[in-house]
Amino acid sequence: MLVDLNADMGEGFGAWRMGDDAALIPLLSSVNVACGYHAGDAEIMARTVAQAKAAGCEVGAHIGLPDLIGFGRRRMNIEGRSFTSHVLYQLGALHAIATAAGHKVTHLSFHGALGDMAAADDELAATLVGAVAQFNRTLVISTSPGTKTMAAAQALGMRCVGIFAADRAYGADGKLVPRRQKMSVITDPDEIGRRVQRLITDQTVATIDGTSLPMPARTLMIHSDTSDAVAAATAIREAVESTGSDIVAMSRLPPLDRN
Amino acid sequence: MLVDLNADMGEGFGAWRMGDDAALIPLLSSVNVACGYHAGDAEIMARTVAQAKAAGCEVGAHIGLPDLIGFGRRRMNIEGRSFTSHVLYQLGALHAIATAAGHKVTHLSFHGALGDMAAADDELAATLVGAVAQFNRTLVISTSPGTKTMAAAQALGMRCVGIFAADRAYGADGKLVPRRQKMSVITDPDEIGRRVQRLITDQTVATIDGTSLPMPARTLMIHSDTSDAVAAATAIREAVESTGSDIVAMSRLPPLDRN
Amino acid sequence: MLVDLNADMGEGFGAWRMGDDAALIPLLSSVNVACGYHAGDAEIMARTVAQAKAAGCEVGAHIGLPDLIGFGRRRMNIEGRSFTSHVLYQLGALHAIATAAGHKVTHLSFHGALGDMAAADDELAATLVGAVAQFNRTLVISTSPGTKTMAAAQALGMRCVGIFAADRAYGADGKLVPRRQKMSVITDPDEIGRRVQRLITDQTVATIDGTSLPMPARTLMIHSDTSDAVAAATAIREAVESTGSDIVAMSRLPPLDRN
Amino acid sequence: MLVDLNADMGEGFGAWRMGDDAALIPLLSSVNVACGYHAGDAEIMARTVAQAKAAGCEVGAHIGLPDLIGFGRRRMNIEGRSFTSHVLYQLGALHAIATAAGHKVTHLSFHGALGDMAAADDELAATLVGAVAQFNRTLVISTSPGTKTMAAAQALGMRCVGIFAADRAYGADGKLVPRRQKMSVITDPDEIGRRVQRLITDQTVATIDGTSLPMPARTLMIHSDTSDAVAAATAIREAVESTGSDIVAMSRLPPLDRN
Repeated sequence: MLVDLNADMGEGFGAWRMGDDAALIPLLSSVNVACGYHAGDAEIMARTVAQAKAAGCEVGAHIGLPDLIGFGRRRMNIEGRSFTSHVLYQLGALHAIATAAGHKVTHLSFHGALGDMAAADDELAATLVGAVAQFNRTLVISTSPGTKTMAAAQALGMRCVGIFAADRAYGADGKLVPRRQKMSVITDPDEIGRRVQRLITDQTVATIDGTSLPMPARTLMIHSDTSDAVAAATAIREAVESTGSDIVAMSRLPPLDRN
Repeated sequence: MLVDLNADMGEGFGAWRMGDDAALIPLLSSVNVACGYHAGDAEIMARTVAQAKAAGCEVGAHIGLPDLIGFGRRRMNIEGRSFTSHVLYQLGALHAIATAAGHKVTHLSFHGALGDMAAADDELAATLVGAVAQFNRTLVISTSPGTKTMAAAQALGMRCVGIFAADRAYGADGKLVPRRQKMSVITDPDEIGRRVQRLITDQTVATIDGTSLPMPARTLMIHSDTSDAVAAATAIREAVESTGSDIVAMSRLPPLDRN
Repeated sequence: MLVDLNADMGEGFGAWRMGDDAALIPLLSSVNVACGYHAGDAEIMARTVAQAKAAGCEVGAHIGLPDLIGFGRRRMNIEGRSFTSHVLYQLGALHAIATAAGHKVTHLSFHGALGDMAAADDELAATLVGAVAQFNRTLVISTSPGTKTMAAAQALGMRCVGIFAADRAYGADGKLVPRRQKMSVITDPDEIGRRVQRLITDQTVATIDGTSLPMPARTLMIHSDTSDAVAAATAIREAVESTGSDIVAMSRLPPLDRN
Repeated sequence: MLVDLNADMGEGFGAWRMGDDAALIPLLSSVNVACGYHAGDAEIMARTVAQAKAAGCEVGAHIGLPDLIGFGRRRMNIEGRSFTSHVLYQLGALHAIATAAGHKVTHLSFHGALGDMAAADDELAATLVGAVAQFNRTLVISTSPGTKTMAAAQALGMRCVGIFAADRAYGADGKLVPRRQKMSVITDPDEIGRRVQRLITDQTVATIDGTSLPMPARTLMIHSDTSDAVAAATAIREAVESTGSDIVAMSRLPPLDRN
């Protein structure tokens, strides 16, 4: 089996840093790059693209709400149609920076509150994914399995891939347990490794309640702000290898219907 | 002779408007679109591109300093190399918005203080133009004749075109008379028309002191905030026709060395 | 009877203007000044305060969401407690600017989506009004009659005053008819005058459905972006005089319980 | 002798942090609080004020240029008179937040490029200090000895105090050695302690060239981004005690002319 190992990178702004991108990127196969709306700025984007390229990682656009103070985590009552242009703006900005660096944008995902809103709203999902399709129909869209975003991508015939948050607990409803709850973040690398093994062999995950949840996911995500993301990524790599699977970049994953 | 008729458009932000783009664009052959740093936002960019496309105008990126409050008119001590990414960011954002609209970015210019700084600084000009070349070497760069920006574009083998500010007075040094000085802005459409006729037939302009200044320019600019820009644009169109010349979009101008 | 005549002023940003403040302010008795979150910047605030002072108008803080692109009109999922600091920030910024100008902040209101959210949410209203009270308990809070904001102000023993939107249609529920609906904005000065007369003599307003709505309001608002706000303000002044009432600034209105 | 121990705090923005304020503040006697232009936001300001109050520290406004991406370190061609309002805006914002917390703003300084520009420009210094005086003449202004800022404060009869950067090397011209130069930052706590002892006993500092520079300074600053700022602060406290001097908050320092 082929899986992708991915994290949100370039989440600083100006003089501010978040996470240790330089240490983590060499362990990944693809990275999501913040595009200046919720985090990131043009210089950080360029640096992140250069780091990704040097490490053989593919880059994708991490598209967010225009809310630097709130890190794109606060829902805003955007009007979907007008937000189309904001999706294109972020995507194009990264495209030009990647092109100038001799690299290429291969995928994208929606960050934070924007991602949550699209996941549950047919119309918003169709609008956002439609904006992407207007620019580049070959981009891979990564999102949690079962979201409206995935349905919208499939309806448009675009490639998409399910995300498994390797360092986060899931509820029985298939959603991430909110960060403010106890046990929502998994920090033990061994535990993370076991979850990845199970995902690959079984396509399931144990929920926080102990039930088994189907998880048709091929991109394994870790969060750079999780304590010791490097250890987590290393554990994931070992777990993947132990199953005889391979880590490849996002665009090299098989199409979803052959998962 | 072929000339282009051009203005800076899309200079609003959010709910704020500047100039009457809808009235002016149909009279132009190309428009410069603000890209969110000194003015403009993604929605306004999309609207401006749509208006331009409907009017048969080409669009170009109007690239500025990150200074919305100052409208990009205040010099900032940017470091050229790091600003490379900001040029790409703006250019790419417009590229994606234009692509989604079925239109195309054909040209660019540097706005306000960024333009002034590049015009006089070999290294900054080379850095900024070099950034553009990394993304798309076929873009036409418009700038005042004789600037370092033009020299940098020519050194890189990129197409460039000289700007004639049809509604502004020039000093004997070839620079625009600053706006705060009397007589710096020309509002009489007849006077604007006569200046354009002279430019086309003679390639010169009368300075504010009455001397004759060579002006090897092919793109005629008007400012949307000049009172009655529509009358000015109409006068320019008539003046161009009276000389038997034609108005064409920026990319259809002949290369500079054949001016 | 004493009433206040009020408008939202200083709603430009940087080089952008909104409405003709210089023409309207001399007709008012108090103005709400945007504080840089949804509109306004420090220089515009200072200019607006100076205009207000010259015209004998009181100034108040118009406190909004941090959303310049959306003009503070998009709901955001702010956390009330943390927004406390943002209320203080805006209020203090205007306080210092007014103090330096030899003027004084006497009142405040919540703008756009923030105002709408507080109006309907006990907890948010109590939090926002509580923030104000921590800084200055003597400020007058203006809000539509019947809102949670008014209840919160009264619960804290703060002065408040009901707003009557003289140029807007009301529904039977006491809410403004949304702008996108037909007949939501009243532009005929005579009609505006008649509504003000009825308000003063009767404390009621005719809803868009023709029913009579109690309207215990003492501050009459007009919107500067309404076409011909000057004519509207003039009509209001005449209407007030015709009833033998007087226009006074916000802080000179009688306490609400003696309305 | 009485000296103040001070650092720039609250320099995060939104989700981003800079330095470990919680560890450092208890060792200080006063803190400069970033006010949202170059760093800081309303929530961070409130948190910083609360930490300062709990530690018995006075708070002052750290006033900067409107440049979050550049952290206020890039010179901008601001017009002094119009920047007056921006000084007041920042000062007032902190004033309200401090007032609501039961604390008080006692001092201020100009950050980064704004501080550098004012230090060398009579007119700008007079304008900025004049803006402060219009709001509160009792604030103490801290700046490097010998700057135009200090002269402007003295000319207006305002209290001021000289800054000694305890962890930074000085040139023979009395200016800080730029950060990009070797040996510009002093990280050895013992060395920092010795410099403070010399300052207190001698009112001089050894420059990077080994000459002795008069240093009439009473506020000892450390930078939170210096590696191990806590060790540095501890060393300073011990050095001050070893001379029999006391650390007191900014407003309790004696007036400058009695230094």
